[in-house]
Amino acid sequence: MSDLERRIRALEDRASIAELIASYGPYADAGNGEGIGSLWADGGTYTFDATRLQHPDIAGLVELESHRGLMAAGCAHVLSAPSVRIQGDTAVAANHSIVLVRRSETWVAERVSANRWNLVRTEAGWRVASRDNRLLTGGEWARELFAL
Amino acid sequence: MSDLERRIRALEDRASIAELIASYGPYADAGNGEGIGSLWADGGTYTFDATRLQHPDIAGLVELESHRGLMAAGCAHVLSAPSVRIQGDTAVAANHSIVLVRRSETWVAERVSANRWNLVRTEAGWRVASRDNRLLTGGEWARELFAL
Amino acid sequence: MSDLERRIRALEDRASIAELIASYGPYADAGNGEGIGSLWADGGTYTFDATRLQHPDIAGLVELESHRGLMAAGCAHVLSAPSVRIQGDTAVAANHSIVLVRRSETWVAERVSANRWNLVRTEAGWRVASRDNRLLTGGEWARELFAL
Repeated sequence: MSDLERRIRALEDRASIAELIASYGPYADAGNGEGIGSLWADGGTYTFDATRLQHPDIAGLVELESHRGLMAAGCAHVLSAPSVRIQGDTAVAANHSIVLVRRSETWVAERVSANRWNLVRTEAGWRVASRDNRLLTGGEWARELFAL
Repeated sequence: MSDLERRIRALEDRASIAELIASYGPYADAGNGEGIGSLWADGGTYTFDATRLQHPDIAGLVELESHRGLMAAGCAHVLSAPSVRIQGDTAVAANHSIVLVRRSETWVAERVSANRWNLVRTEAGWRVASRDNRLLTGGEWARELFAL
Repeated sequence: MSDLERRIRALEDRASIAELIASYGPYADAGNGEGIGSLWADGGTYTFDATRLQHPDIAGLVELESHRGLMAAGCAHVLSAPSVRIQGDTAVAANHSIVLVRRSETWVAERVSANRWNLVRTEAGWRVASRDNRLLTGGEWARELFAL
């Protein structure tokens, strides 16, 4: 691979990972389990609170009573633009996620979390190997996800 | 066009669209109608609530009583990093927008919306052909904007 | 430099600046002063409210009583994807920052600011020459940071 090609590929990697993470929120709010599932690698995990889901069960997230309740109320899963470190065929990304829920006339931030994403290059492109999501309630436990 | 050039152009397309969408919020909060107008293609539309504005009238958005009220109170039009699908000379993007308004000592999320952007490559670069913005109040009507 | 190389470099510049700004939030919430400090150029400044910090003192931000209080309560420094204009070896970026703080069972937006970043290409890559952060409380003073 030429030097220019290597630089283009590094840019493509970064763009693909940004797109992967940016598509989570719209999928979640649309209740699109299949879309969410497509972001993870085989056997990949999504861990939040006391729950750990593993691909392909992650698609079932949108059927959870808690998720259906959010959608019925009116919700937005907003993810911030991630900080991404790529090393060959793996990458680590950190960002925030906010779940805003419609209550009366305004929306309330009912979940605000630190997220760490371990990503892997597969034959089908970049996928999530694991995503850890921890509520930022003041403890070191959540903050340590931001120690890249 | 060589293969490398094609890949570079795909990256440039993605970067241009990200920049276009990222510039909306600062323009809106600065009351810069001309800046907002420059993002849309000739005849392009912006539809929100029961309002549909068409270019070049979109620039007048910042003169609306409602917009002036938000600016006087202190507001932030925050747009999340979009998920973008490009096909040749058109593209579709999905993201969230949040309007935070200063009330007493804190800011309240008074609008939280799903957004779908139809974009078009023009001679002057990428522009918005249509933007649909619908409040996420629990109905399918808003969520369907996220069905890409 | 060939035309293709120039285009690749422009894309790399944009990606580097996006990464720089995206890494601020996770560093701030993790209390990582060294990480924050590494984003600024020698002599670079960070101005917010009535405070102006200068590199390398910016790293001390996380030791401020105010910052420690936010971390103890549970906080998220969320930065929106920036609009970026690059000209040679300098660049200007504009975006929002939101500080969400855990209060009772939800998170409250206690700071919502306009940010203008002046960036400079150094031998070590892009760094912040100055960042200005002003609360969006309705005054022209904050909004003018968005006049790019």
